[in-house]
Amino acid sequence: MHSDQKKSTTSSTAAGSAVDVRWHEPTVSRADREKAAGQRGCVLWFTGLSGCGKSTLANLIDHQLHARGCHSFILDGDNVRLKLNAAPGLLIERHGAEFAQRFGLGFSAQDREENIRRIGAVSDLFAQAGLIVLAAFISPYRRDRDAIRETLAPADFVEIYVKAPLEVCEKRDPKGLYKKARAGEIKGFTAIDAPYEEPLNPELVVDSAAYPAEQLADEVLGWLERTGKIPTAVKT
Amino acid sequence: MHSDQKKSTTSSTAAGSAVDVRWHEPTVSRADREKAAGQRGCVLWFTGLSGCGKSTLANLIDHQLHARGCHSFILDGDNVRLKLNAAPGLLIERHGAEFAQRFGLGFSAQDREENIRRIGAVSDLFAQAGLIVLAAFISPYRRDRDAIRETLAPADFVEIYVKAPLEVCEKRDPKGLYKKARAGEIKGFTAIDAPYEEPLNPELVVDSAAYPAEQLADEVLGWLERTGKIPTAVKT
Repeated sequence: MHSDQKKSTTSSTAAGSAVDVRWHEPTVSRADREKAAGQRGCVLWFTGLSGCGKSTLANLIDHQLHARGCHSFILDGDNVRLKLNAAPGLLIERHGAEFAQRFGLGFSAQDREENIRRIGAVSDLFAQAGLIVLAAFISPYRRDRDAIRETLAPADFVEIYVKAPLEVCEKRDPKGLYKKARAGEIKGFTAIDAPYEEPLNPELVVDSAAYPAEQLADEVLGWLERTGKIPTAVKT
Repeated sequence: MHSDQKKSTTSSTAAGSAVDVRWHEPTVSRADREKAAGQRGCVLWFTGLSGCGKSTLANLIDHQLHARGCHSFILDGDNVRLKLNAAPGLLIERHGAEFAQRFGLGFSAQDREENIRRIGAVSDLFAQAGLIVLAAFISPYRRDRDAIRETLAPADFVEIYVKAPLEVCEKRDPKGLYKKARAGEIKGFTAIDAPYEEPLNPELVVDSAAYPAEQLADEVLGWLERTGKIPTAVKT
């Protein structure tokens, strides 16, 4: 079982096997899926400090895309850390300690790198399926974000820097994490005792301290329209 | 950065932050996505020996779902082993040897377990997005398949055993793998020197040695109609 069979090979072989059946190569291409969905698959990658409003903005855009009949999906800590990138503790019971130790993800530098790498790979699959995937993760390291950009098809990676001053994010502090980080209860917290590397050439920079989320969402949707990712909305 | 912010928390906080904006909780639910797609998300998990016709059947069903206007996507060795479950050799250049050694997947028992686990987790995300995902992998171990079933929502996991006698699969031998396994060039090959554990209670068993793939595809599509996963096709 050194690799699973390739569809092309299987199809041609099956056509000449015990049951003699011939059919057209049934593969549905990415272009087919995009045509059916009426949009171009892509990855909207929201990066920024904790509390900058990444998830809020991503959810708002997801909602508006849905309302327009577009096909989208959100990847965030809520649905990714539960299974795909589960912590070791979530894997022990079913898979054992050695397995959990190797594949479970914590918050070491290496674990964070793999966390973002897997999310990038899954985002790619969603884009291949013709969906607009919205990924909202702090993703503080430029190298990790650039790695995803480089492994995706050209124009698939849309980096959106959700920019807000640390003071604003810290004042919001939705989960009380900044407070804990300042108290030394959390180590390696982005912008407190770990770096945040700003994107150098993001597709979009949105200022979440100066503008309401609806306006930022409109800005992103307008960009998606102008670049042909989604149809232009009918003005009513 | 010990966890990414939760959307619910962020939304309520953002609403009361520097910019005073209030909006309805914009989360699009799975039910919303399914309603828009006119189908129920689920995972069609094709299991069976190498050469049994899993990928052929999955591609044919994918094609027919697409033709009906359903939203589907295929996960197979072709698109999964390239990035998400890349071999160590594919990760070294970008991530270094230690990283590649830990997270890259080969063909050891543990690596295969993680290969199937990640595919299950990704399948789950696609089902959450309202898609019908078709996963075609030998997946020889009952424990690994059952683990996916248990971690998915009830009724999301549709196990389809693509059954064909070893002799038939070996005669087809689409990639010459059985020949290599018999010659001892491949070790641990399913049904040659590694076990294949038949599903005990699969949702469907299809006999790919006795029936043409089109007929098997119709059988699966009929099952999807009867269980309400997809609308009943209009007879023409």
